Amino acid sequence: MENGDSFPLMNSLPSRRHFLKASALAAAALPFIPKFSLAAAPKRKLGFALCGLGNLSTNQIAPALQETEYCKLAGIITGTPEKARRWQAQYNLPDHSVYSYDTMSKLADNPDIDVVYVVTPNGLHADHTIAAAKAGKHVLCEKPMEVSVEKCRQMIDACKTAGKQLAIGYRLHFEPNHQECIRLVREQVLGSLKFIEAGFGFAIGDPAQWRLKKELSGGGPMMDVGIYALQAMRYLSGEEPISVSALATTNDKVKFRDIEESLTWQMAFPSGVLANGNTTYGFSGINRFSANTDRGWLALNPAYGYHGISGSRSDGKTIRLADMNQFAAEMDDFAQCILGNRPTRVPGEEGLRDMKVISAIYESVRTGKVVNLT
Amino acid sequence: MENGDSFPLMNSLPSRRHFLKASALAAAALPFIPKFSLAAAPKRKLGFALCGLGNLSTNQIAPALQETEYCKLAGIITGTPEKARRWQAQYNLPDHSVYSYDTMSKLADNPDIDVVYVVTPNGLHADHTIAAAKAGKHVLCEKPMEVSVEKCRQMIDACKTAGKQLAIGYRLHFEPNHQECIRLVREQVLGSLKFIEAGFGFAIGDPAQWRLKKELSGGGPMMDVGIYALQAMRYLSGEEPISVSALATTNDKVKFRDIEESLTWQMAFPSGVLANGNTTYGFSGINRFSANTDRGWLALNPAYGYHGISGSRSDGKTIRLADMNQFAAEMDDFAQCILGNRPTRVPGEEGLRDMKVISAIYESVRTGKVVNLT
Repeated sequence: MENGDSFPLMNSLPSRRHFLKASALAAAALPFIPKFSLAAAPKRKLGFALCGLGNLSTNQIAPALQETEYCKLAGIITGTPEKARRWQAQYNLPDHSVYSYDTMSKLADNPDIDVVYVVTPNGLHADHTIAAAKAGKHVLCEKPMEVSVEKCRQMIDACKTAGKQLAIGYRLHFEPNHQECIRLVREQVLGSLKFIEAGFGFAIGDPAQWRLKKELSGGGPMMDVGIYALQAMRYLSGEEPISVSALATTNDKVKFRDIEESLTWQMAFPSGVLANGNTTYGFSGINRFSANTDRGWLALNPAYGYHGISGSRSDGKTIRLADMNQFAAEMDDFAQCILGNRPTRVPGEEGLRDMKVISAIYESVRTGKVVNLT
Repeated sequence: MENGDSFPLMNSLPSRRHFLKASALAAAALPFIPKFSLAAAPKRKLGFALCGLGNLSTNQIAPALQETEYCKLAGIITGTPEKARRWQAQYNLPDHSVYSYDTMSKLADNPDIDVVYVVTPNGLHADHTIAAAKAGKHVLCEKPMEVSVEKCRQMIDACKTAGKQLAIGYRLHFEPNHQECIRLVREQVLGSLKFIEAGFGFAIGDPAQWRLKKELSGGGPMMDVGIYALQAMRYLSGEEPISVSALATTNDKVKFRDIEESLTWQMAFPSGVLANGNTTYGFSGINRFSANTDRGWLALNPAYGYHGISGSRSDGKTIRLADMNQFAAEMDDFAQCILGNRPTRVPGEEGLRDMKVISAIYESVRTGKVVNLT
């Protein structure tokens, strides 16, 4: 079982390794996130167990762990013994660091594991998050948080009950170009925000994959990649939408019999800002946002990949801060939060907020009505 | 009384005068418009009477008439005697070529006038079009055609009854960059169309102008400039939308007490193509469309001005065909249609189709529901 981004663009770009102290940098650039002192965190490496060894864990997260300052791979949780053997050999993992989904309660007996990183299909996130929390572990869970608002709430409750932190894998909260765009909007460098256009989609491959099965995915491209455009709308505006409407179309009714193929949505924010979004599994090429102000604009294109994010501004300047390993930054930040006993900037509540909007988007498609969120 | 485009961008750009035989060029580039032989049209100049002498007539249409091959200014219709005197002096117009809105029936006695170009506020288009038709004149009417579907139908009926042609002032149907984009989509040069994003808006000035009064305008920026983005969606896709939804927001509730300040809309087409649109009177800077295909994209930005339209394509080529006088091309084409007894490519029925969609957009805003158009 596997989860996480699988759109082709991301892996086709050259991986650069200019790792920045992005956590500190990003925290400074996010005025709506409380700032905490980073100096206090003791320099200790927390043990991470990866739960779900699919493409994202294999090609992104495990390599990223090697680039972290505060994290180390300390365990794996997988349903496939062959994968376990391969990972044990590659990462020199002892037998007692290997778990199956059925033996997660035994994580409680392993003091080397501090955090479980849940990278399984969307519809299993709650099960694995709750199991990890019950075993006394902090949880970092991939986006989308789950497939329903109710499941998200259960995850938050379980971690709260266990006294453990829950973070969602919103890697772009640790990406300097996105943080720079947030700063430009907040400080009104190019004017006062009025309108956002954002979209992300790709032509999905293998028709047998879990992403196309609603029970595991919870929905189509909106859940998987549209969520990045939704995130951009939310963190650029710094607001929660008050009304949402959406349309969906499906051309390939065999491949997409369970989920939407393409979807557009629009949202109104309390300030009067309007936003148009789109997402698709039907074609590649949309990977962008633009934000118009009363006297200019800024845009990222490409906006959401692992590398090569860049953009432009109405004043002629480019936006191209140094590439870095977003997963390493995300994990290091979470480790520092745990070590320093301070809250993450991407808590379960942030995942829940997205899930509320996505649920409203699907409700609008289903009912043909504008859905009010209050 | 005046009508037509008044967004500042248009007049601030340098006027170039590379007049092309755009009508023939555009007809060839529009596969969904029947082609007619242009060779048969006798070379005679038709007399145009301008009905409404506001900014658009003064700064665009009257100068454009001087650049036409098949048209000449033969009369004026105005409610302001002072304007009549000024125009008479400037264009050497005899007294019998000057009419008020109340004396339009007397146009019937003036054989020098073949066409009335209606350039009054939206909500008066039907009155003036019907009066002109009853006086036996062909009518070219500015966009938007009127303020309701019913009014549009009355205009079509009146011209049909009179045996006269009715054209709507959709100048971009005669603009070579737009025609090139239509060709690229139709011939699938960059792939098969999947998604369109289009928007047009500007910060409106004078709070006393008729555009802000719903009785005369019929609505806000959607009627005035959003219609260009809607047109782009319709002629790029070559389809009529089957469902529409929209959201509107207003920040300045004094200035915009009668109409929307900003509006986004989305549409689904029968082929599965989705489109996101936006329009505003609240801020300037959005004047664009982009069309994504299954293997590329094309875009114009700026897209809708009188001059300087240009764009780009995913294959690295630019789109920048020679600037021309869109109003001259529009009027020459209509004159040739009349002289050659062939239908215009921008008939009243085309204006009616837009009005149906715009009515659905406003209905969606009003009801909070997706509106199905079948």
